[in-house]
Amino acid sequence: MSAFHIVPTASPPLAAQLDAAIDNKTKPLGSLGTLERLAKQMGLIQESVAVSVERPAILVFAGDHGVVAEGVSAYPQDVTWQMVENFLSQGAAINVFARQNDCALHIVDAGVAHEFGPRPGLIDRKIAAGTRNFAQAPAMSDAQCASAIGAGAALVAELAGNVIGFGEMGIGNTTAAAALMHKLTGIPVAACVGAGTGLSHEGVRHKQRVIEAAAALHATAIDPLDVLAAFGGFEIAMMTGAMLQAAQQRKVLLIDGFIVTSALLVAARIEPAILDYCVFAHCSDEAGHRRMLDALEAKPLLQLGLRLGEGTGAALVLPLLHAAANFLDQMATFASASVSEQTGKNADD
Amino acid sequence: MSAFHIVPTASPPLAAQLDAAIDNKTKPLGSLGTLERLAKQMGLIQESVAVSVERPAILVFAGDHGVVAEGVSAYPQDVTWQMVENFLSQGAAINVFARQNDCALHIVDAGVAHEFGPRPGLIDRKIAAGTRNFAQAPAMSDAQCASAIGAGAALVAELAGNVIGFGEMGIGNTTAAAALMHKLTGIPVAACVGAGTGLSHEGVRHKQRVIEAAAALHATAIDPLDVLAAFGGFEIAMMTGAMLQAAQQRKVLLIDGFIVTSALLVAARIEPAILDYCVFAHCSDEAGHRRMLDALEAKPLLQLGLRLGEGTGAALVLPLLHAAANFLDQMATFASASVSEQTGKNADD
Repeated sequence: MSAFHIVPTASPPLAAQLDAAIDNKTKPLGSLGTLERLAKQMGLIQESVAVSVERPAILVFAGDHGVVAEGVSAYPQDVTWQMVENFLSQGAAINVFARQNDCALHIVDAGVAHEFGPRPGLIDRKIAAGTRNFAQAPAMSDAQCASAIGAGAALVAELAGNVIGFGEMGIGNTTAAAALMHKLTGIPVAACVGAGTGLSHEGVRHKQRVIEAAAALHATAIDPLDVLAAFGGFEIAMMTGAMLQAAQQRKVLLIDGFIVTSALLVAARIEPAILDYCVFAHCSDEAGHRRMLDALEAKPLLQLGLRLGEGTGAALVLPLLHAAANFLDQMATFASASVSEQTGKNADD
Repeated sequence: MSAFHIVPTASPPLAAQLDAAIDNKTKPLGSLGTLERLAKQMGLIQESVAVSVERPAILVFAGDHGVVAEGVSAYPQDVTWQMVENFLSQGAAINVFARQNDCALHIVDAGVAHEFGPRPGLIDRKIAAGTRNFAQAPAMSDAQCASAIGAGAALVAELAGNVIGFGEMGIGNTTAAAALMHKLTGIPVAACVGAGTGLSHEGVRHKQRVIEAAAALHATAIDPLDVLAAFGGFEIAMMTGAMLQAAQQRKVLLIDGFIVTSALLVAARIEPAILDYCVFAHCSDEAGHRRMLDALEAKPLLQLGLRLGEGTGAALVLPLLHAAANFLDQMATFASASVSEQTGKNADD
């Protein structure tokens, strides 16, 4: 029994109104492709034939992972807090892309293994200084997992906008995400683990063995929350809670890369209707991400070969949401513009 | 011997500088994927390690096609001028997307079969009131073809910006584009002709037969300009000239859909180095477009299933050009942000 209540967006009367509004625009039927589907989805989420992008925000959750002790990452763990500092100094890719797209950016310490002290712009929701090493014990306690979910939900409840994107930073978190994916989808570990940001062949093999051993250790974790506690990061659990709250409030959710999608995988096992609210921003080159998206029957809007997380895909997809809202709002109809409609079945321009 | 002189952008020293600037940014190596390649291409075009998007403009060329007399289109020819009026009234998709992206939009009458009279905002470069029916005679005379190319080039010479996108409107112009593609690439007509904006199976077969018969009629047209005169539209020839001029002036060219790419196909046969200057905005669902892009070894940035022309793909890709310029300009370096670099080959975050 979930603490969240997410209703499917399906509404045949509204869907018919949206279809009519889209089809009456001065363009060949269906010729705006994906943008038409996006406009319709946003209309169903927002329960309106007028679609809007208001005060979009991206939440970036940072956390550290005990499993790095197994040598699954060649980046030192310090990069997590160093990149948080970089976010606060406006120097990271997500800063640039959020600013470009007039998108608010909120940086959350979900559980970084570093004492920041009071830092303007940093939202302190630290559960602990990194998770435990899931190769030896569950990454977090049930209470920590519940706290992280609650903290993520509470953060979203404070946001005014109607579009929320999710991003993350955490050395070692592709390992956590791959483990979650394996446990929740049943896809073999070898197909969940990828080269990440540049793993050698042997590095990938090692990561795979670490996850396989941990999956055996936590074989009794079946329930999505148990799986999340066993393998997840604090940043992943906090995203899961934030996503559930955002969908409950009928916001549009922008789902970015491999780690963000793993948080959604947990959320969708708890509340399947959450998928109605998700716009999949980007498919990375990571083979595991493609398979994870397939498991969710998700079709991402962008394929740019990004693989740095931070919510960068979510920021970069915002112009397409604006485009969907704008064509629906601003384009003329065949009637208003006195443009002739198709006269037969052999349309061709 | 072409009237244009386009130099390749290759510069090993500048390329090395750009690579270094990109690799020093605070992100895993190569993790901005396509945006990194785009930034490098723009840098080589602009001969600078600082990349910019200044006063971008889209030129939309409209023209009518005599070949519509063969029944290759079920949209009435009047839709060409009606859509031009719609452009002037700001009601079309391209108006919406250009406005959203702060992109200037110039509407050009290259040869519409309609008397507009003086119309504010319409650039009158009408060569004639539509081309001749290429099923019976060359679509245009050599003099008309040269005039159209010259007019397109002159329009670009007046523009101040460093990024120019191309769009078109013309009932029947997918038929002209497919004929150009067949003649210039040798790809069989059946593989050049698609369903367009909704052709029936029989409609596609008929279009194919019309093009095959015309290809036989104009079998002696081999030289790209002869091919252009035999099958092209005035809007296509004007785009060819505009593209050649834009590349000569080292501007970034945004190449949109099937018809725009057919104009580039002509230009690339005249000046192959033009391809260095081209950013391919979008791959439409039209099978012929994918094959045309393959023939140019082009990798488009977006795949949104658009198929309405007008330069819509060019407008929608502009945020990615800004993103490429902005990350290069605004992101911190590892040194400036004191972020640790990768410590080995097993990078993973």
